[in-house]
Amino acid sequence: MRLVVALGGNALSPAGGDGSVEEMRSSLTAAADVLASLVADGHSLVLTHGNGPQVGRLLLQQERSAADVPPMPMDVCGALSQGQLGYLVAQALDNALRRRRLSARVLTLVTQVVVDGRSAAFRRPSKPVGPSYERPEAQAISHASGHVFAIQSDGRWRRVVASPKPLRFVEEGPLRALVDSGHVVVAAGGGGVPVVEHRGQLHGVEAVVDKDRTAALLAAVVGADLLLVLTEAPAVQVGYGTPTARSLSTMTVAEATGWLRSGEFPEGSMGPKVEACVTFVKAGGAAAIGALADAAAVLRGEAGTRITP
Amino acid sequence: MRLVVALGGNALSPAGGDGSVEEMRSSLTAAADVLASLVADGHSLVLTHGNGPQVGRLLLQQERSAADVPPMPMDVCGALSQGQLGYLVAQALDNALRRRRLSARVLTLVTQVVVDGRSAAFRRPSKPVGPSYERPEAQAISHASGHVFAIQSDGRWRRVVASPKPLRFVEEGPLRALVDSGHVVVAAGGGGVPVVEHRGQLHGVEAVVDKDRTAALLAAVVGADLLLVLTEAPAVQVGYGTPTARSLSTMTVAEATGWLRSGEFPEGSMGPKVEACVTFVKAGGAAAIGALADAAAVLRGEAGTRITP
Repeated sequence: MRLVVALGGNALSPAGGDGSVEEMRSSLTAAADVLASLVADGHSLVLTHGNGPQVGRLLLQQERSAADVPPMPMDVCGALSQGQLGYLVAQALDNALRRRRLSARVLTLVTQVVVDGRSAAFRRPSKPVGPSYERPEAQAISHASGHVFAIQSDGRWRRVVASPKPLRFVEEGPLRALVDSGHVVVAAGGGGVPVVEHRGQLHGVEAVVDKDRTAALLAAVVGADLLLVLTEAPAVQVGYGTPTARSLSTMTVAEATGWLRSGEFPEGSMGPKVEACVTFVKAGGAAAIGALADAAAVLRGEAGTRITP
Repeated sequence: MRLVVALGGNALSPAGGDGSVEEMRSSLTAAADVLASLVADGHSLVLTHGNGPQVGRLLLQQERSAADVPPMPMDVCGALSQGQLGYLVAQALDNALRRRRLSARVLTLVTQVVVDGRSAAFRRPSKPVGPSYERPEAQAISHASGHVFAIQSDGRWRRVVASPKPLRFVEEGPLRALVDSGHVVVAAGGGGVPVVEHRGQLHGVEAVVDKDRTAALLAAVVGADLLLVLTEAPAVQVGYGTPTARSLSTMTVAEATGWLRSGEFPEGSMGPKVEACVTFVKAGGAAAIGALADAAAVLRGEAGTRITP
């Protein structure tokens, strides 16, 4: 099977960790071993990954050193994280493949994703990025940089940017050719570097594309047999956090759509994963959500949640 | 002709500039227009680039925010810069191709280059990277980080790292396939992310590979007809800075080797460019050095310096 696997940014450096390279390498070694087992089973693999914690640290570095080094905008920070994570992911996965004496090699592409600059997402930036601040500090940064801040549920303030839908990849042709030629490809890290096309020219924009939405697009572009969204949770739950909570082994598109509408799935976590799976299944594909450690079982339908037509 | 073009890091953000993204985009628009004219003339293009000024700024950011974010080692900083510059270069070049209504598209690969971990380069780190410091500050950073510092000709101190020779690319197969399929490929930015291979496993190392040496390897790997090293100087000079200085329109491998030995070409600038050309011409290729603005004329042998067997 041709698999598109979406890996959460937290799988690369765990939430609450220090974000050091040693920590990232250690998380990645575990993840890579699971992914290599899928290649060993004969599957073709296209990998995409989040960058939330990592781009947060890059944004903090931009701000802390702003007096000496001009801060880079969001599109360039996304590209920085694609280089950083793409390298670490590719190396860890390549090493895992080598340990299993597999001949497939891993390649990372810097990937731009086209978004609609006139979409409502740009008028109402909603996606929190980077560190959180007390109000006075957020105000000072906002005055100096023009960045928009919004109060979060914990009472602290974070920068918010647009999170527009991904329309297509700039590098679609070569991306497809590389996957067809049998390489393991790492692409569209962090949801892809967001660009708009205006009068035939590409321009980077201050936005973040949701990595699960981009994974669904990637699955469509490479003609994946299965979109596999790997996370920390073992399965999708309804009634999450209530006494009637239950895990789902399957969920139809109609059920998922209803629950998405009724707010059953949290915005920043399970919501976009379910939405991505619905999008791809509606387009004729297959999709599942489950824990990274259970990847092989999720693939066989023995763990996680399968989204059915 | 299949061209491998090596672009200096200063062509991406000019020496003495502020390093802002606006400055980089403006330099790149000019460079991309020259490169697109080569594609318009029917040539196939593989592009590599330096990252000196940019990785210097990344290193400064790592250090300024070290209290909040664990600094990344040199290999990861190289990968960060490949993402950043690869994105900006690809976008600028893609836009230049679109303005000329050319159908070729641009793709950036994150590229690892294997070096010999037992080479003498690691015992005598010599390549200055990052900002320069007064002695007490350099000592403090050295104590905290274990980094090696060396005094520079201006009396200030800079971190020095190993600059080992590039042996091969980890991504050689797909890199060659992409070039063969007619795409403009940006690869091995900043000389490539340096890794060693030990018992069949890849490990990043604290080093910087000279981008001109890597360009010569890249030219050999993709079977380039010409290695074109583009810089700020219009041609190679002998007697540089003396009353008898003269520019060379051609230079044989034997002449170049003699002048390299006698120290005719400065270490950190023209030396590695001439050395790279000598390597590639000795291996049966053709090579030239010249100014970015003169690229088309250098290609025709009407400007710059051609290195002949």
